[in-house]
Amino acid sequence: MDRATVSLIVLAAGQGTRMNSDLPKVLHPLGAAPMLHHALRAGQSLEPERVVVVAGHGAEAVAKAARAFDESIEVVVQAEQLGTAHAVAQAAPLLADAPGEAVVLYGDTPFIRPETLERMLDLRSRHAVVVLGFEAADPGRYGRLVTQGEELDRIVEWKDATDEERTISLCNSGVICAEAGLLFALVADVGNANAAGEYYLTDVVALARARGLSAGVAICDEAETLGVNTRAQLAAAEAEFQKRARTAALEDGVTLTAPDTVFFALDTFVGRDAIVGPNVVFGPGVTVESGAEIRAFCHLEGCHISRGATVGPFARLRPGAELAEDVHVGNFVEIKNAVLDEGVKVGHLTYLGDAHVGEHTNIGAGTVTCNYDGVMKHRTEIGAHAFIGSDTMLVAPVTVGAHAMTASGSVITENVPAEALALGRARQVTKPGMATRLMEMFRAAKAAKKKKETP
Amino acid sequence: MDRATVSLIVLAAGQGTRMNSDLPKVLHPLGAAPMLHHALRAGQSLEPERVVVVAGHGAEAVAKAARAFDESIEVVVQAEQLGTAHAVAQAAPLLADAPGEAVVLYGDTPFIRPETLERMLDLRSRHAVVVLGFEAADPGRYGRLVTQGEELDRIVEWKDATDEERTISLCNSGVICAEAGLLFALVADVGNANAAGEYYLTDVVALARARGLSAGVAICDEAETLGVNTRAQLAAAEAEFQKRARTAALEDGVTLTAPDTVFFALDTFVGRDAIVGPNVVFGPGVTVESGAEIRAFCHLEGCHISRGATVGPFARLRPGAELAEDVHVGNFVEIKNAVLDEGVKVGHLTYLGDAHVGEHTNIGAGTVTCNYDGVMKHRTEIGAHAFIGSDTMLVAPVTVGAHAMTASGSVITENVPAEALALGRARQVTKPGMATRLMEMFRAAKAAKKKKETP
Amino acid sequence: MDRATVSLIVLAAGQGTRMNSDLPKVLHPLGAAPMLHHALRAGQSLEPERVVVVAGHGAEAVAKAARAFDESIEVVVQAEQLGTAHAVAQAAPLLADAPGEAVVLYGDTPFIRPETLERMLDLRSRHAVVVLGFEAADPGRYGRLVTQGEELDRIVEWKDATDEERTISLCNSGVICAEAGLLFALVADVGNANAAGEYYLTDVVALARARGLSAGVAICDEAETLGVNTRAQLAAAEAEFQKRARTAALEDGVTLTAPDTVFFALDTFVGRDAIVGPNVVFGPGVTVESGAEIRAFCHLEGCHISRGATVGPFARLRPGAELAEDVHVGNFVEIKNAVLDEGVKVGHLTYLGDAHVGEHTNIGAGTVTCNYDGVMKHRTEIGAHAFIGSDTMLVAPVTVGAHAMTASGSVITENVPAEALALGRARQVTKPGMATRLMEMFRAAKAAKKKKETP
Repeated sequence: MDRATVSLIVLAAGQGTRMNSDLPKVLHPLGAAPMLHHALRAGQSLEPERVVVVAGHGAEAVAKAARAFDESIEVVVQAEQLGTAHAVAQAAPLLADAPGEAVVLYGDTPFIRPETLERMLDLRSRHAVVVLGFEAADPGRYGRLVTQGEELDRIVEWKDATDEERTISLCNSGVICAEAGLLFALVADVGNANAAGEYYLTDVVALARARGLSAGVAICDEAETLGVNTRAQLAAAEAEFQKRARTAALEDGVTLTAPDTVFFALDTFVGRDAIVGPNVVFGPGVTVESGAEIRAFCHLEGCHISRGATVGPFARLRPGAELAEDVHVGNFVEIKNAVLDEGVKVGHLTYLGDAHVGEHTNIGAGTVTCNYDGVMKHRTEIGAHAFIGSDTMLVAPVTVGAHAMTASGSVITENVPAEALALGRARQVTKPGMATRLMEMFRAAKAAKKKKETP
Repeated sequence: MDRATVSLIVLAAGQGTRMNSDLPKVLHPLGAAPMLHHALRAGQSLEPERVVVVAGHGAEAVAKAARAFDESIEVVVQAEQLGTAHAVAQAAPLLADAPGEAVVLYGDTPFIRPETLERMLDLRSRHAVVVLGFEAADPGRYGRLVTQGEELDRIVEWKDATDEERTISLCNSGVICAEAGLLFALVADVGNANAAGEYYLTDVVALARARGLSAGVAICDEAETLGVNTRAQLAAAEAEFQKRARTAALEDGVTLTAPDTVFFALDTFVGRDAIVGPNVVFGPGVTVESGAEIRAFCHLEGCHISRGATVGPFARLRPGAELAEDVHVGNFVEIKNAVLDEGVKVGHLTYLGDAHVGEHTNIGAGTVTCNYDGVMKHRTEIGAHAFIGSDTMLVAPVTVGAHAMTASGSVITENVPAEALALGRARQVTKPGMATRLMEMFRAAKAAKKKKETP
Repeated sequence: MDRATVSLIVLAAGQGTRMNSDLPKVLHPLGAAPMLHHALRAGQSLEPERVVVVAGHGAEAVAKAARAFDESIEVVVQAEQLGTAHAVAQAAPLLADAPGEAVVLYGDTPFIRPETLERMLDLRSRHAVVVLGFEAADPGRYGRLVTQGEELDRIVEWKDATDEERTISLCNSGVICAEAGLLFALVADVGNANAAGEYYLTDVVALARARGLSAGVAICDEAETLGVNTRAQLAAAEAEFQKRARTAALEDGVTLTAPDTVFFALDTFVGRDAIVGPNVVFGPGVTVESGAEIRAFCHLEGCHISRGATVGPFARLRPGAELAEDVHVGNFVEIKNAVLDEGVKVGHLTYLGDAHVGEHTNIGAGTVTCNYDGVMKHRTEIGAHAFIGSDTMLVAPVTVGAHAMTASGSVITENVPAEALALGRARQVTKPGMATRLMEMFRAAKAAKKKKETP
């Protein structure tokens, strides 16, 4: 069967008052990404023609986050929050004439699985409107799905439900799908004659049924419908996300010594037989090839680590760090926007930023690429098989040639040709007995100071 | 209602044999503070006139810890541990004539809530003696509270209890309150005619009843009465403390990516919408303003972090570190006893100790304030808008003026005027081909050494 | 009773297909040691005369790991994996004539306790063959132990068991012991006429019974028989190992602030009243004496930390780091193959490798032993009571005498006699107004660049 043409509508207008935060709810981070990205990623699996995010509170920031996920995403603003049907209606000018299906997702419901959405689309062959439901362990105040055989008769809000209806455990997730034109036609008919005075998207089921159309239910795990309304729920969602990511990594053949101490991001990729030690934090945009090793206490963002490379403990890789095969980055080392070719070794206490290092070059402890002059950033270029002595300051822009060497403690301000040795340090002078005399002076100074302070 | 005049008696004499430690039990750390401080903090909420700590094992160390909490705390020593009533009696010389209420707390019972103590004091309007009890999930060998309606008839130790009494689930926490004069009078009447030959504080209830006085029970959560007798219990108490602190932070609107990996101290304050990443350890005395960000792997003690400041990952702030608004402290950076004014940036591999840095100054990677000459510590003063080049050694005492600059790799031993550039480094010399010749020499040396070793 | 002469056979030939890994299953790490070492360690408690490891998949690597545990271990290779009896038979050429007992253990069953093995040996006085069994909470598809009174009648595989036999909850661990000659005679009789066509070690029980010999069962906790077949099970085994190690440490009187965040290795030793902060990772070969303190975020391997020493936070000790009493190693410090005598202080941002530091010497921030010249490693020798200034480069091989001093920012290439001061740095030059002029130049350059880029 050909994949249906799909338009995605993602509701992301709520403030999230209960988050006790100035940040719009859907921008709170989950797996090192804005929560919104999780729903977008699930929806993306349907290869939608168009994606419309309905923003409201903090619309500008929400729009920016949406476009950071995918530049083609369109954003409409719901100026007043008058209910979910009203939110969907904001997308009508863009999508009412769109061909194919419209699927409504929620920016604060991050765990819907792609397979679940596929099942909803499949059910569309039998029903005009398909709603996603779940069997609730504790139905509480969720809206209930009233069914007759395979047909979804209507969705009833808890506060409007009869005692009998409240015994139903099949609940409404809010996720819905229908042919786009129909969805917007139904949404246009939704009224707000209810206690809250809101336009509820759930009403489209009854409206469709009134037109003699069929509605159906796709069922998913309750865990997929987990919504986030408080910081405690956000922390629980983060824990759930991490649990899934850790289990997936183990199943993919990654060695995790202490899975509970490894934090993955939404887009982390780690290859088979890669080793990840305890207390490793993955920020966004990290890929680790098979057989690489990340030791304990590493912090990684926006970087690529190739096969055979070892990183850490206590290493920080920042965006643009590219480690080729068999590179070693050791402790208390920071790499930013720098490409390290095969076999490069950076063992200790080093900062490499805005740089390229050729293969098999050795970078001594305490080396710094001085990439900032107070106004601009500059690049450092180091050739292959070079030897950078400890505590070398590479004052960028500067180039060190292949097989060149810098003496430890040197400040390199001029380019170093291949095979040359560059020194920028004073000769050692040794003064016999002077250490003892200095210490005596320091002690006398201290005694004098004390005497002065205690008259 | 006016707050009652209160005297606090905190029992802290036990050795804690089961801790398997030389450290007195109440000094074992909980939330980065001596366990004793927790009971003192709860008691402090009653704004007591006087606080008396009864010390015994390690009395000197206990007294020091008590005074570190509040200098006005008085300490009496119970030379022999003859029971809880005997311990309270040691405070009689100080408090027998004190006006108002006496409340007895325990240095190894850290979780009693202020609200609970308030409720005990409220109940004093109806009873001469008020005991704190709890419904035990598993009463085990706790003392039982035998009640008749609202009256507490007596406290019966488990080993003296009848089978019927053992079915009682209302148990004794040990916390007690009464008018001070009465309490000491009753305590003086307690005998030691029991199996253990100890003077039990619990006996005061029966003694009060024998005088025709009323006794009552305030009830609290069992969790509040958690005592610490073993290291495993201490670890459990620490876990409980952290759980409460994390929940409170979330409720206060703090963003905790991974709450279970953040360790709070008893006095940590973190503002709303501050962000705290995974694996952050708060030592004592840390305040973080709203909207500041503490990234992963930070270790903070005795410091203040202002709004908009970002810290870490891998940063260590030690006592006296004061970060003004929008300061950035990056990775592998240590700050001790140093004030960083607004907008200062210290990105990488730096030690700033005993220093002041003016606003918007940039500190290069590898900078060190050389504050110790082997005998004394000295201060470094850096002006506003200065630019400290990478790997600058600031040999204190030294001053760098506003808008001044140091060249990277410089050792600064003399003051630098405002707007001046200071250099303390040798000029670079480049020797063509020398790197290759040196490497050949090194390789030859290695071969020669090998030959010598294998005759 | 004299200890029996024992030969140990450890089966370690399996590939562990379900691990989804190229590494042989028994080499996956558990407690920072190959899983195989755990069974070897349990077996070692019996003081075996000979230990034979039966390797198969990755035999070379397995043999190397076995010999790393104990050089005297013998390894035989099972070229084809035809079953457990076939595996044991591979040891026959080495052990068929061995005196005393043969005990069969499994490289993927790491939690068998020494006491359990002792109980098995004790039971040999009553039975010719002793099998280790356990009461399974959920017997599932384990082999069942069919007993008649004290006698073990036979072991029946789940798939061959009758419904009645499947109700038995006493299950087979696989661990077995018998007189060595008998064991190999029985194993030689085992056939492979079963569905899998494998030679099962479990058949030796029925074969012994057929010879009129007695078989018995020693019973252990189910937890001891935990086997590892998947990465999820390995992670669970690691969690179990850590839980036991943490509990044992607490019982031994170690202070663990946050036990769940401390990772022990199989051979870690930590003394009473030592303090271990949150997030500490012990690699193999670490001993910590009583009263030492390891602060948060430390990574330790192959090192010794003496009484009164303090380490961290953020310290890395690598193999060969020896810290004498009262040594202090601070943050962002790496020590490798270096002996630090009593009272040495290395506070910040330092790398000491291949070095010896005399007592009470102070090492300034940013110091590096430049121990590698690109070809060979060299040693640094520093005397007692020396003062190494911040950012000193010690270009090895080099010696600094007792009570000597190096000026901060110096590169030390020649030996420094006792009590001498060595300097290797340029004098400071200060250029008034130059910082301001430079900044203006930089800003102009930026503006020019911008202009050029935007035509």
